Order: sequence, then C-alpha cells, then structure tokens
Amino acid sequence: MGKGRLEAFSDGVIAIIITIMVLELRVPHDVTLDALAPLWPVFLSYVLSFAYIGIYWNNHHHMLHAVKHVRGSVLWANLHLLFWLSLTPFTTAWMGENHFATIPVALYGFGLLMNAIAYTILVRTLIAAHGHDSEFAARIGSDFKGYVSLAMYVLATGLAFVNSWISLAIFFAVAMIWFTPDRRFERSLDGP
Amino acid sequence: MGKGRLEAFSDGVIAIIITIMVLELRVPHDVTLDALAPLWPVFLSYVLSFAYIGIYWNNHHHMLHAVKHVRGSVLWANLHLLFWLSLTPFTTAWMGENHFATIPVALYGFGLLMNAIAYTILVRTLIAAHGHDSEFAARIGSDFKGYVSLAMYVLATGLAFVNSWISLAIFFAVAMIWFTPDRRFERSLDGP
Amino acid sequence: MGKGRLEAFSDGVIAIIITIMVLELRVPHDVTLDALAPLWPVFLSYVLSFAYIGIYWNNHHHMLHAVKHVRGSVLWANLHLLFWLSLTPFTTAWMGENHFATIPVALYGFGLLMNAIAYTILVRTLIAAHGHDSEFAARIGSDFKGYVSLAMYVLATGLAFVNSWISLAIFFAVAMIWFTPDRRFERSLDGP
Amino acid sequence: MGKGRLEAFSDGVIAIIITIMVLELRVPHDVTLDALAPLWPVFLSYVLSFAYIGIYWNNHHHMLHAVKHVRGSVLWANLHLLFWLSLTPFTTAWMGENHFATIPVALYGFGLLMNAIAYTILVRTLIAAHGHDSEFAARIGSDFKGYVSLAMYVLATGLAFVNSWISLAIFFAVAMIWFTPDRRFERSLDGP
Repeated sequence: MGKGRLEAFSDGVIAIIITIMVLELRVPHDVTLDALAPLWPVFLSYVLSFAYIGIYWNNHHHMLHAVKHVRGSVLWANLHLLFWLSLTPFTTAWMGENHFATIPVALYGFGLLMNAIAYTILVRTLIAAHGHDSEFAARIGSDFKGYVSLAMYVLATGLAFVNSWISLAIFFAVAMIWFTPDRRFERSLDGP
Repeated sequence: MGKGRLEAFSDGVIAIIITIMVLELRVPHDVTLDALAPLWPVFLSYVLSFAYIGIYWNNHHHMLHAVKHVRGSVLWANLHLLFWLSLTPFTTAWMGENHFATIPVALYGFGLLMNAIAYTILVRTLIAAHGHDSEFAARIGSDFKGYVSLAMYVLATGLAFVNSWISLAIFFAVAMIWFTPDRRFERSLDGP
Repeated sequence: MGKGRLEAFSDGVIAIIITIMVLELRVPHDVTLDALAPLWPVFLSYVLSFAYIGIYWNNHHHMLHAVKHVRGSVLWANLHLLFWLSLTPFTTAWMGENHFATIPVALYGFGLLMNAIAYTILVRTLIAAHGHDSEFAARIGSDFKGYVSLAMYVLATGLAFVNSWISLAIFFAVAMIWFTPDRRFERSLDGP
Repeated sequence: MGKGRLEAFSDGVIAIIITIMVLELRVPHDVTLDALAPLWPVFLSYVLSFAYIGIYWNNHHHMLHAVKHVRGSVLWANLHLLFWLSLTPFTTAWMGENHFATIPVALYGFGLLMNAIAYTILVRTLIAAHGHDSEFAARIGSDFKGYVSLAMYVLATGLAFVNSWISLAIFFAVAMIWFTPDRRFERSLDGP
C-alpha cells in the first residue's frame, strides 16, 4: 500500500523530469534542414539524459518490485534521489547549450555522480529496512555495477578538464552497461 | 504488477506530452478576435498532435490490457516509444509556427513515422515475450492497420516536397483510421 | 481494469492542466507589495480556473466511480473532454493578462461551454454503454445542474459584450453551484 | 477506491509542483563556475521548497494511508490544500530571484502558513468524516507539531521585517522538525 503510492509519486516526478527536458529543444526560426543543425548538441544531451532518467526509472521499478515494505526513512531516501534527478534538466541544458564545454560537462558528470550516490543510499536504506539477511538483500548482492558506475562518473568528471569528449564517451558507455537489465530483479517480473 | 507500473509511467509521460503542447499556443497581446486569427496553424497542429498522442495512448491502453507479463526488453521498447513520442511537441511547434512549410511538415511526418516504428517494435517485443502462438499474438494478428499507417507516413513525408497540404490531409486521414478502435482488444475491456 | 487506467490518465492530464496555469503568475521584478498588485487579474483568473478544473476532476471522479465498464467510445469521449479542458490555461491567461476585456472574457465563457458540452457527451456515452435502464443511468437522472450550467455559460458569453463583470459573476456563481457535491454519486464513496 | 484516486490526483499535482520549480533555475550564459555562483539564492530557495513540498507529500501519504473512507468535503479540503501548495513555485521564485528581500521572504512565510492552515483543515475534515472517537482521530491526537509549525510560520513572516535571514533560519528549522517522520502513522506502513 505505502509502496504503491511511493511508486506512483516517483513515477510522476520521473515522468515530468524526463519530459520537460524536451522544452530545451527550442524551435528554430528558419524552416530549413540547416536550421536544425545547430540543435545537435542540445539533442544529443537530451538523448543522453532521457536514457539516464529512463535507466533510473527502470532500475527503480525493478528494485521497488522486490521491496516488501517501506518505512519513513525509505520515503526520505527516495525523495533525496528525486531531488538530484530533478536537477538533471538543468545540467543537461547547460551542457547542451554550450557545445559540451569543460565546466558544464564536469557539472553534468557531478550530477550523474550525485544521482548514483542518492540511488546507493536508497538501496542501503531499503536493505536496512528488510534486514541484511533478507531475500531482498540477497538479491541486491554486491551491487558491483553500481560501484563501477560511481567510479566511472568520478573519472568522467575529472577527465572533462582534459577533453570533454572523453567524458561524454564514458557517460554513454555507462548508460550502455545499464541497458542490460538487472538480472537480480528480472525474474520477479516474469514470474515464477 | 510490473505491468501496472509500466502503464502508470507511460500514462504520466503521455499525459505531460499531450498537455505541454498547449504552451505553444501563446496568448496574443491584442484583445480582438482578429488577434486570435494568426494562431490557427498553431491550433490546427495542436489538434492534430493531440489526436495522435491520444490515439497512441488509446492503443497502448488496449494493447497493454491484453498483456500478461512484461520483461526487461519490454520496458526498453516502451521507453524507446516514449522517447519518440516526447519529440512530438517539438515537431508540432516547428510546423505550427511556420504555416506548414515544407521541411517542418516533412519532419513532422518523419516524427510520426518514428513513433509508428517504435510502436511496432514494442508490439514485436511483446509478441516475443508472450510467444508467437500465444493468445496475445493471435489477437495482434497481421497488424494490417499498423503497416498501412507506416506506408502513409512515408508517403506524406515525401509528398511534403510537392505540396505540404497533401501531407496534412494524409496525417488527418491516418488519424481518422485509428479513431475506429481496435476491435482485437476491444472485447477485453467490456468483458466476456 | 480499463477504467483504472482511464482514471489514471485523466488524473495525469487534469493535474498538469491545473498546475501549469500557475506559470502564468509571473514573478514581478520589484520587491514591494505594490509590485504584486497588478497581478490580481491573473490571480483571480487562476483561482477561477483552478476551481473549475477542480470541479471537473471532482465530478469526473464521482461519475467514474459509479462506472461499471468502459469501451472504445468512452475513451474517445473522455479524450475529447480532456482536449477542451487543456485549452483552459490559454483562455485563462488571455483573460487574466487583459484585465477581463470583452473578447477574452467571452472566449473564456465559450471555453467553459465547450468543457460542459464535452462533459455532457461523456455522460451520454457512458449511459449508452451501460444501458438507459441501468443503475448508472438512474443515478445520473435528469442532469438538471449540467443543463443549467450550459445555459449560464451561453448567457455569460453573450453578456460579456454588455459588461464583462456580469460574466465573471456568473462564472463564479456556476462554480458555487458545483461546489456542493453531486449527491447522486456521493453515496457510492462512503457507502456500504 | 475513492481514496485511491484522491491519492493519485494529489500525487500528480504535487509531483508537478515539486518538479516545475526547477525551471526557475535558469541556465547561465557563461560556462565558468563563477557563472553558477549568482544562482545560489535560487538554488537555496529550490532546496527549501523541494523539502517542504516533499514533507507535505510525505505527511499526506502517511495520513491518507490511515484514512478509511472519503466524502465530498474531503475532496474539496484536499483541493484547497493543493491550491495553496500550487502557489509555492511563485513565492519560491520571487524570493530566490531577489536575494531574500524582506517582502518576498514574508510572502514565502505567508505561503507556508496558508499551506499549513489548509493542511489543518484537511486533517479536521478527515476527523469529522471518521468521527471524533474513531481510530483515525486517536492517531492524529493533539497535532502538536502542526500547531507549533503554524506559530513558527507566523513568527517567521513577522520577523522578515526585522531580518529576513532569521525567517529563513526558522523555515529550515521547521523543515527539520518534519523530517522526523510522524510516528502516529508510521506503524501502519511497516505494520504487522
């Protein structure tokens, strides 16, 4: 019950975040294909952020599906995650409008890092709520992918000061890792 | 369960897409009926896109109703559909603000085509998840209407370079085809 | 099932409509109470439209609660209602930004009229789906309040050309009528 | 049933309110860290309002979870709460864009006060609907925290005319009080 509404509220916030980003894709005044060309960094940033927010929704969906019960601390940890996710339209817009300049790319990486940290906190809070020897905790396991991602975000944020395209490549690479769904929770969707 | 949240998230994203398009309908400075007149291409584009997004929601609703279970690949195929749908406010605004000029109309047609391709991929992914000899696959059948629409979008996109009003007429014609609800899934709503 | 998702999608669209209207309430540059004063027509328009959209959500909620099953025609009638409701932010903004000038007030009244007609169509479609001798049809009864409202909207739209404050008074009066909840469906919420 | 949709609609509106506030965080033109610095009052205001709206969602969630049935008056009291909450993006933006000037901070405090009064009315309406000797009423108890908050908002609004930083400190202090979840309803989430 409590879980249902937590999911509904998270779905609402994530749906709005993922959709309002398209408002940054401003309509050009001219009506030629050439007029669309300058939009490519904004578009590429949109694709990247849409993928990331989609991945978070996906993982959130899988994880919450395995959750048995929630408590106050889970609600706050979830709200904390939504807070960092809600800043994604800002970091996306700054990066996209400035052709992947160093500082905006680094801030984008920092944003991804904070999203990942907030997600990790939510995972830990849920494990604490279920007990460390619960079925839920067993499913989470070592969370190897999560920690690799954290390291990659730190790396990408730092490398933005060398070459921001390397950072972008890392952002896309991490997204690719996550597109393979999380086998731990996968079974629970398909059933027995 | 997994299906319920997939529907909820899709509902949220589609609801936002369909509603933020109205923000393009900018309030005129003057307070005469004449001041409203120049808005008609924006309004007509809004009506068309509202109808299309509504049709997608409707078909999504009917199809998901028949779905028995979802898996990771379905979530990604659904997200992919939402991505293309989310670009509709952009193509709608470009077309509406430029009085149905050639390139914006062609891009609008291309957007409809990508929506339809993404929907077809979702249908195929769901059939794969249920099995080709499942009740679900039987209900989908040959998806004749879907393939006709795809062909019409390609045609309309190309004809925009001849006369963009022909393209618009095709867009409205395809919408009309879909307003007749999909009998395949209809029964499952009304029950036995 | 089908009904649940119809409610969820309607809730999403109505929630967005009711909330994005506040974006018209533009922050003044100055930091005095006097700087807020010129906002009153926008604020008053917001209050009025918030009340109307809230009333529609409320009546929609009560009516759908009594609904036993939906079919394709109901989905389209509902989408048609959402379309007209979605234009409310536009008519509200035009009226509020122009200090209740004649034409914007008349258009606002016309918008309310179209909302009411669309709602009536939805009611009729639902009655047709349940049968004219169904429990649902019996609960709707003569829909006296609905027809009175329609007449009042026509009256208010016409009187805007005499004095737009009379129209505004009628808009508020009709809203007041609806704040008394619909007893027909009320019992089903509390009820045994 | 009625309760479910009340929760869904409230979730939708609150999700939109909490998310559109980030649109005020306008992307700077420059691409240096220095260019971000002037955004801090807007960011701080966003953090504060995100926390408050999150707290309202959280408390609403806990309270509604304990609710057994709703009636018309509850729907209106809830809509009234959503109305005041919906003004939060406006008061937040005015305060944030003006470096916490006196009048905007006082208006922000007044907005928090109105939110709290509207919430109290909702609580009272729900108690009336359940009966004063109901389990629900027993759980609410004296609502000590609610009344302390009301007093603090009045105090903070008044003190804005002395020093607006005192008001801000009070706003954050009250938020802290609410971050400790409401034990009254907590058990019902975890419960046996």
